[in-house]
Amino acid sequence: MILEERVFGMTTKMDQAEAPLYIKVHESDNVAIIVNTKGLSEGTVFPSGLELVEFVPQGHKVALVDLQEHEAIIRYGEVIGHAVKPIPKGSWIKESLLTFPTPPPLDTLPLATRDRSSQKPLEGYTFEGFKNSDGSVGTKNILGITMSVQCVTGVLEHAVKRVKEELLPNYPNVEDVIALNHNYGCGVAIHAPGAAIPIRTIQNLATHPSFGGEIMVVGLGCEKLRPEQLVKDDDGSTITSLQDQEGFHAMVSSIMAMAEERLLRLNQRKRVTCPAADLVVGMQCGGSDAFSGVTANPAVGFAADLLVRAGATVFFSEVTEVRDAVHLLTPRVVNEEVGKKLVEEMRWYDDYLASGDADRSANPSPGNKKGGLSNVVEKALGSIVKSGTSPIVDVLSPGEKATKKGLIFAATPASDFVCGTLQLASGMNMHVFTTGRGTPYGLSMAPVIKVSTRTALKEQWHDLIDVNAGQIATGEATIEDVGWELFHLMLDVASGKKQTWAQKWKLHNDLSLFNPGPVT
Amino acid sequence: MILEERVFGMTTKMDQAEAPLYIKVHESDNVAIIVNTKGLSEGTVFPSGLELVEFVPQGHKVALVDLQEHEAIIRYGEVIGHAVKPIPKGSWIKESLLTFPTPPPLDTLPLATRDRSSQKPLEGYTFEGFKNSDGSVGTKNILGITMSVQCVTGVLEHAVKRVKEELLPNYPNVEDVIALNHNYGCGVAIHAPGAAIPIRTIQNLATHPSFGGEIMVVGLGCEKLRPEQLVKDDDGSTITSLQDQEGFHAMVSSIMAMAEERLLRLNQRKRVTCPAADLVVGMQCGGSDAFSGVTANPAVGFAADLLVRAGATVFFSEVTEVRDAVHLLTPRVVNEEVGKKLVEEMRWYDDYLASGDADRSANPSPGNKKGGLSNVVEKALGSIVKSGTSPIVDVLSPGEKATKKGLIFAATPASDFVCGTLQLASGMNMHVFTTGRGTPYGLSMAPVIKVSTRTALKEQWHDLIDVNAGQIATGEATIEDVGWELFHLMLDVASGKKQTWAQKWKLHNDLSLFNPGPVT
Ligand SMILES: [Ca+2]
Ligand SMILES: [Ca+2]
Ligand SMILES: [Ca+2]
Ligand SMILES: [Ca+2]
Ligand SMILES: [Ca+2]
Repeated sequence: MILEERVFGMTTKMDQAEAPLYIKVHESDNVAIIVNTKGLSEGTVFPSGLELVEFVPQGHKVALVDLQEHEAIIRYGEVIGHAVKPIPKGSWIKESLLTFPTPPPLDTLPLATRDRSSQKPLEGYTFEGFKNSDGSVGTKNILGITMSVQCVTGVLEHAVKRVKEELLPNYPNVEDVIALNHNYGCGVAIHAPGAAIPIRTIQNLATHPSFGGEIMVVGLGCEKLRPEQLVKDDDGSTITSLQDQEGFHAMVSSIMAMAEERLLRLNQRKRVTCPAADLVVGMQCGGSDAFSGVTANPAVGFAADLLVRAGATVFFSEVTEVRDAVHLLTPRVVNEEVGKKLVEEMRWYDDYLASGDADRSANPSPGNKKGGLSNVVEKALGSIVKSGTSPIVDVLSPGEKATKKGLIFAATPASDFVCGTLQLASGMNMHVFTTGRGTPYGLSMAPVIKVSTRTALKEQWHDLIDVNAGQIATGEATIEDVGWELFHLMLDVASGKKQTWAQKWKLHNDLSLFNPGPVT
Repeated sequence: MILEERVFGMTTKMDQAEAPLYIKVHESDNVAIIVNTKGLSEGTVFPSGLELVEFVPQGHKVALVDLQEHEAIIRYGEVIGHAVKPIPKGSWIKESLLTFPTPPPLDTLPLATRDRSSQKPLEGYTFEGFKNSDGSVGTKNILGITMSVQCVTGVLEHAVKRVKEELLPNYPNVEDVIALNHNYGCGVAIHAPGAAIPIRTIQNLATHPSFGGEIMVVGLGCEKLRPEQLVKDDDGSTITSLQDQEGFHAMVSSIMAMAEERLLRLNQRKRVTCPAADLVVGMQCGGSDAFSGVTANPAVGFAADLLVRAGATVFFSEVTEVRDAVHLLTPRVVNEEVGKKLVEEMRWYDDYLASGDADRSANPSPGNKKGGLSNVVEKALGSIVKSGTSPIVDVLSPGEKATKKGLIFAATPASDFVCGTLQLASGMNMHVFTTGRGTPYGLSMAPVIKVSTRTALKEQWHDLIDVNAGQIATGEATIEDVGWELFHLMLDVASGKKQTWAQKWKLHNDLSLFNPGPVT
């Protein structure tokens, strides 16, 4: 799909990095984006004959030909809108010059139509992980404490602090103790259709591979979400209810005792050599810009293909950033059933947005637009590139656990922390996050590798960005180079041999549940 | 409204505390609730002639007369349902024996019809508070750091930890430094009609009276919720955007520098004597039981009347627990305009629940039911008692700032932390929380006084419950006694002279925004 054309302009400077540069993604595109950090001024000339008739900022689009009123504006080989008036060649195509196209209709999509020449298996790649009895593999060794209701947060935080100070030092193989904070469990319409999502999310987070099968649940006692709905507790050792305790000190003691039992067992966990196939990698973008679809996301897509060839599981997500490009994805599903599930998730989200008097135009953000993305169509075309080229073997509803290997569409909102939380619930043990504007994203349950779309961001955020894909724009690196770099880094980070910047600074954003149902 | 009849049964024991006891609330009631902690067994006889024909648990209802099929079951002098079959006198009235009544229709409610004999002003009561230049008064002295988007959480947490360790000890008059964590700001439909609520909540939390007018906002840069929408920043000293910083260390340094500037000024704040009229008290219940409306809530209602007589502001809230008793409240509004606002909030919530395929029956919780509350009608009748008897001078939409003194209905969900967060946004500087089942509730921005509805809870949670209203059930204390105890305790806690248990253990639940709009 990506047929990049990188065109340097004339420059008096010898430094190629500062030479005027635009990138056209697909041969049929009639627009290109400007690469230079400070944009390019009126009068800039390219050997292709293009001359800018006005200033164009970095990442923003320039018209490669004279565009008539109503003419289709094409990027990634797809229509991203129509010209509201004639746009002369060399003009800056501002957001206001495009109409907003209707999304692909959902009832006529081609399902599973693409020929699948099977990709060559990629063998011999391994990492050092924590094998669990259920077959899953953790990249971390953590005690995770589940809560059935937010009411217990204050007590649990107090207890976790004491566990970390007083007990954790005795169990050096255990990396961390975390409370799975959320704001669900009571004061919500627990029987509303939307409630299934947050409930299964909490349930699936409790059994995350980083926790080594050691589950404990702290509940209150009177909450709507019954702890017994979340986990089995045959011998009564898995759940503690604060209302059964004789006051605050007893609550803290009970939590600490349950924690210590589990720390003892978790401390026995050792890293062993696992095939790359045991990775479950969640791909996501946030704070995107016009380079996302040209640099970072294609490199991530290349790495996704490597992972799939190695037998691993790869998630891509973010329904609102897939919706407008779904016609490019439905041909890639493995069969009609998976195709229908994909379409169903799109339809569900259309309805969900409509029920809140919103629509897909609520995405992108002001920062996305400043970064050159005119609308969600252009954003989606750049976003789905993260999925690479593999067949889509399954579709998960928000928070469902993955049961297959290969490329999976895990339906989630695009909201960064909601998406990350749901991918964790689906079993993700490694997260790759691409960003153009920059966001200091981090999770406690899985390592997060941050990939910048622009070199300027990597330079500015030298101690937050792990991989720079910006060099792809300037031609200093290829998509393949960065894709392989990322693949190797994933294995090293999964093994605990390298730390991401977010791990180094312990940047842990809160979990963020997706609750489409009402609060009461 | 409360015309309690407390009836002791025969006992061979000399200890009155263990004598069989039921409470009938209103003279027209045909049911009463059992007071004894372990319930009462079949054959228990009362001097009224009542004999239990089966075991009845604590807080649960007993039929005082033979009830015919379809006959109205009356508690608090109001119909809480109809008998689904004949119920003999002395039977346990289980939830399944009541039909669920339709709620009061909203278009025929009597507005502002009650005669208002003005209450005698209560003078001479004061507390030691922190006066702010805008006229508000804080009960705490805290640096509150606002975030425009959840993306900054990880960095901000790191910075706050360092501020508390390295800077706060130099400013002994400042009690705490807190990040106003939330999961809003991006990845949400920012132009959906529901978005107004979380946005004004964040805005009004930023200017909470505990923060002494010292505002600082940490933003990312590309988020949908613009920091400039939240606060004015004429001189550029109020907002920092992480995307403007040269990496992680620069971000932390910039936050720490902004924080220190403010700590310096906050450290100058001193407590001064303020009239009780400067209190803004939010009343709430959570983990309610059948005693809530007989013991704790009436005592809180009595204290609410004292506060109003002293010129203070009192909020009651929790729409789903007001809806079924709204016909008892609309007569009490001061004028038609306020009445219409009250009705409008009920209607908005009916629609909100319906849009998520839920209704008011989503409340109560399993614990409420175990505590004897059959349905939300019975719960509501006990819940609104917190409002006392004063006229309702104003109605606030969720998260709006109060501008009047007196009794105000601040519309919020009943969800404990959502309600508390919204009452804080409305300007609450003191929180009173009644509980029957027990919840270790706490907030960082205002003290929380916890009142138990039952003596057994106070005995069990000796180091969490501040006031025991359970003695009202057994006749060992009157509603007036506990109401005055609470009033005096509020003044002492507001002055920093006494600490609540939640303050002592630093039990701080997370803020919980109310976002009725979709995520994207
Ligand atoms: Ca994205
Ligand atoms: Ca995202
Ligand atoms: Ca937190
Ligand atoms: Ca309540
Ligand atoms: Ca409540």
